[in-house]
Amino acid sequence: MSRAALAVKLGHEFADQSLFRTALTHRSFGSPHNERLEFLGDSVLNCAVATLLFKRFGDLPEGDLSRLRANLVRQDALHQLAVGLQLGTMLRLGEGELKSGGSQRPSILADAVEALIGAIYLDAGFEVAHRVIEVLYAPLLDDLKPGQAQKDAKTRLQEWLQGRKKPLPRYQLLAASGAAHQQRFEVSCEIENPPLRTIGQGASRRIAEQVAAENALKVLKA
Amino acid sequence: MSRAALAVKLGHEFADQSLFRTALTHRSFGSPHNERLEFLGDSVLNCAVATLLFKRFGDLPEGDLSRLRANLVRQDALHQLAVGLQLGTMLRLGEGELKSGGSQRPSILADAVEALIGAIYLDAGFEVAHRVIEVLYAPLLDDLKPGQAQKDAKTRLQEWLQGRKKPLPRYQLLAASGAAHQQRFEVSCEIENPPLRTIGQGASRRIAEQVAAENALKVLKA
Repeated sequence: MSRAALAVKLGHEFADQSLFRTALTHRSFGSPHNERLEFLGDSVLNCAVATLLFKRFGDLPEGDLSRLRANLVRQDALHQLAVGLQLGTMLRLGEGELKSGGSQRPSILADAVEALIGAIYLDAGFEVAHRVIEVLYAPLLDDLKPGQAQKDAKTRLQEWLQGRKKPLPRYQLLAASGAAHQQRFEVSCEIENPPLRTIGQGASRRIAEQVAAENALKVLKA
Repeated sequence: MSRAALAVKLGHEFADQSLFRTALTHRSFGSPHNERLEFLGDSVLNCAVATLLFKRFGDLPEGDLSRLRANLVRQDALHQLAVGLQLGTMLRLGEGELKSGGSQRPSILADAVEALIGAIYLDAGFEVAHRVIEVLYAPLLDDLKPGQAQKDAKTRLQEWLQGRKKPLPRYQLLAASGAAHQQRFEVSCEIENPPLRTIGQGASRRIAEQVAAENALKVLKA
């Protein structure tokens, strides 16, 4: 993908193309790289997501808002956004990093999303960056069910079982495969009563456990 | 102080006075209180301070910027700002909280500063909130010496001594006085070689230690 195509996806045409280029430059490639922009973008993202949640959920207390936000700005979520934007093909990486698959490493991709947001903020101000973030996050926000979504699936499953005085679930790692930057994990979630065993897969053990718990909840609540 | 006088100090006249009132209402007083505004204001503050540092220190790497920001947005700093704004007299607190000195409690005052920033942001947008923060923080920013200031005084003192192969300083609590919400601490910092003993005072043991270390550095570098 070209930078022009990415600009269309982001909905922002950079006045200062050097900002755009820097945002896509990993430190392994040389200077200027995107780490300072990432610092800035992280804070812009936090603020914009806080605002979106504040306005969307007018009754939610501060603790729930914080928890929802933490879920939306953590590496998993940013990595997903980066994949959607096909950022991997656009990154400028040093040769070693490129060969070891850096262009698909979740941390590098997540950082680049933050750096891009920081670059848009410098290029055009807070309101424009806020609008870009609102569009990027629209699907994630639409998926939120407050009162539910602020607790993760493992927590909800545990509470469901505790509320019924049942033993807690056990999670077990079944398989981990793939190179370092694109590992896949498979985890089982076993419940004694009612007897149930579900499977989850994901890019980290944590994600796989959450998926397995979510699958268990679907069965239990069906 | 009246709210009108506070508005002048802040440099912002609220279009929506109910936002202003809510920002100054502690949860002990009743609803609506300022906790949601505090959540929002915290993120606005982080973003604005990140921006001020990013622009002021064009060469500083991301880690140093993060450290500087952490110092500027933590409770001590916000408490200082609240004292400067005389927020204590303006807060709406429940009776119990009022009697136990809540209007001078650093955490309550720091939270109210964040809530006020959140209220200004909702009332007039990011740029206005950013400008208010820039004015509030101007003295603190002018005091920063990057390369120095990103490390606290205790760290700098330790490094100064280690670099000269001298034994590390010892800190000792000499006195703590005052009611819970306005305690004063006095701490000594003792150095073996060159033999030196300095004293620091402050609203927490940590602050008193930093002041004592800063005083030791002044002597050692003189």
